[in-house]
Amino acid sequence: MAQLTIALDIMGGDHGPLVILAAAIRAVEKHSHCQFVLCGDQAVIRPALEPLSNEQLSRIEVEHCEQVVLMDEKPTQALRNKKQSSMRRALELVAEGRADACVSAGNTGALMAMAFYVLKTLPGIDRPALVTAMPTASHHRVFLLDLGANVNCDSEALFQYGVMGTVLAQQCARIDNPRVALLNVGEEDIKGNAQVKYADQLFRNAESINYIGYVEGDDIFTDVADVVVTDGFTGNVALKSSEGLAKLVINEVRRVSQQNWYTRLLAKISLPLLKSIYTRVNPDQYNGASLLGLRGIVVKSHGNASADAFYYAISQAINEAQMQVPERIKNRIEQVLLEHH
Amino acid sequence: MAQLTIALDIMGGDHGPLVILAAAIRAVEKHSHCQFVLCGDQAVIRPALEPLSNEQLSRIEVEHCEQVVLMDEKPTQALRNKKQSSMRRALELVAEGRADACVSAGNTGALMAMAFYVLKTLPGIDRPALVTAMPTASHHRVFLLDLGANVNCDSEALFQYGVMGTVLAQQCARIDNPRVALLNVGEEDIKGNAQVKYADQLFRNAESINYIGYVEGDDIFTDVADVVVTDGFTGNVALKSSEGLAKLVINEVRRVSQQNWYTRLLAKISLPLLKSIYTRVNPDQYNGASLLGLRGIVVKSHGNASADAFYYAISQAINEAQMQVPERIKNRIEQVLLEHH
Repeated sequence: MAQLTIALDIMGGDHGPLVILAAAIRAVEKHSHCQFVLCGDQAVIRPALEPLSNEQLSRIEVEHCEQVVLMDEKPTQALRNKKQSSMRRALELVAEGRADACVSAGNTGALMAMAFYVLKTLPGIDRPALVTAMPTASHHRVFLLDLGANVNCDSEALFQYGVMGTVLAQQCARIDNPRVALLNVGEEDIKGNAQVKYADQLFRNAESINYIGYVEGDDIFTDVADVVVTDGFTGNVALKSSEGLAKLVINEVRRVSQQNWYTRLLAKISLPLLKSIYTRVNPDQYNGASLLGLRGIVVKSHGNASADAFYYAISQAINEAQMQVPERIKNRIEQVLLEHH
Repeated sequence: MAQLTIALDIMGGDHGPLVILAAAIRAVEKHSHCQFVLCGDQAVIRPALEPLSNEQLSRIEVEHCEQVVLMDEKPTQALRNKKQSSMRRALELVAEGRADACVSAGNTGALMAMAFYVLKTLPGIDRPALVTAMPTASHHRVFLLDLGANVNCDSEALFQYGVMGTVLAQQCARIDNPRVALLNVGEEDIKGNAQVKYADQLFRNAESINYIGYVEGDDIFTDVADVVVTDGFTGNVALKSSEGLAKLVINEVRRVSQQNWYTRLLAKISLPLLKSIYTRVNPDQYNGASLLGLRGIVVKSHGNASADAFYYAISQAINEAQMQVPERIKNRIEQVLLEHH
């Protein structure tokens, strides 16, 4: 296995650099074939590395960065004013070929803007898309995109998302011939809007894509498709509203459990049951959204990611790098474009 | 209290007329101040009424209808070919002033198309909207609209939905000054698309609407707003994807509970707990979506509604009729238009 280098934005996220560092150290320990470049304030990073062995330290490089992109900073401002930031540096390392992938838990909007600017899109891709894997009924995963990288998507963009999602599902979830669906509504006579209907035609004409047609919002979770494609506005709302309902369930369990001594007892007894359900539907578990369509691998971890969650996002980046996802997207897009014309 | 007449489409729904009739009979028993017109096949309806008292029978009229709108029938076809259907008749009774409201569990698309055609929109309203109340963290309700009546909404339509939602929340949920929010995404520098941004301006200029700005998908459930406004495409996806996640939770509880004797025991012990959570998040409980903006009251019950659920939808229709929702929407729209100009 080729030795991979992963750049980490140590300064991003809601919980500060120590949580990110804890995940980074765990990644150094577990992924012994990988090198890591830690981007951030060296005064914070160096002391955290003291417990590591010489072998481990030999696989770590610290890239000191003077600036930090704030979580509530406007993306355009971060793009203009934060050229020395840990986020920017991590992306530049990928652009320069010094790293095979980068991971950040920082400001999503800023990361998307910087990644687009620093890495550029692959040939044949107009705009990158944000994608994550969500749970389905039969314990599989479904890849939903776009989650908000582009609020206005034309039919061509939706089609490109389908191609990118296919590659990700094949390479990272080992699904042979991923079923691709377009998210739509079911109540109208002539379903959907103009973009969706034209994208449906594009998919039907692309023989190498396993297109299964339209699905509705609830089908995201029923394992009828492996890749669900939609515009960034709708995808973001679908992700967040299902996250919102999951949080409602979790809070309701907590509230009901605390009602009286009897429910407290019931909750205590059934804890293993509740925990298993919680783990399954807790949106924080589906950490790691990939920014697809760029000339490099960028994984976005939840802003409020725990060390566990950030470690998972690092593993996802390593997986994508091993499977050479951008290269394969490039090839697949070329192949599909040839079919088209 | 004025005596109200409610028209019921007995033939709509996945489970056949007997389930709907059971709900209708319960409504006759419970709402002793109401008259009911049962639209459908009299050969099915008459025998079901035999157990009723003379007083109850005196409040029931059977409107025999030769046709039934099928659940998978195309709305345009139903509109053209099903002029003698129970659905059409129930709507016509409202249009003719012989009923104060109607309820159907039939084909949603057909109901929307027929209702729009038969009842027409109120002055100042371009298109009707489908709205339902969803659960929030603090055991309140939030009204989400549009749920799919219109997949393409301009800013004016979004604004009208805000006005209609305000009236519904005031009249039917007794909220004094309902907080209205626009559904948007949070990741972009300049949030949202053109329609949403212009609708935001319209709301800001309408002093009599308690507009609180943008919310994201997860905020639907956090009780920050009483009315959440979005286009029919996004609203339908938000509703269905959160329903999908709720079903995933329910199925997961079922699956985990059945794993072995120990989990079966745990599930049995914690049944009261699980049931209380189930009741709270099960989307079937939030039955009854209202079609707002028409010159009459139309409540759509879930196609797979149980008798309980359909009964709840009837009660909702009675409530809207008592509160004269269309009349109040008309007045409110006039008031807001005056403010505008």
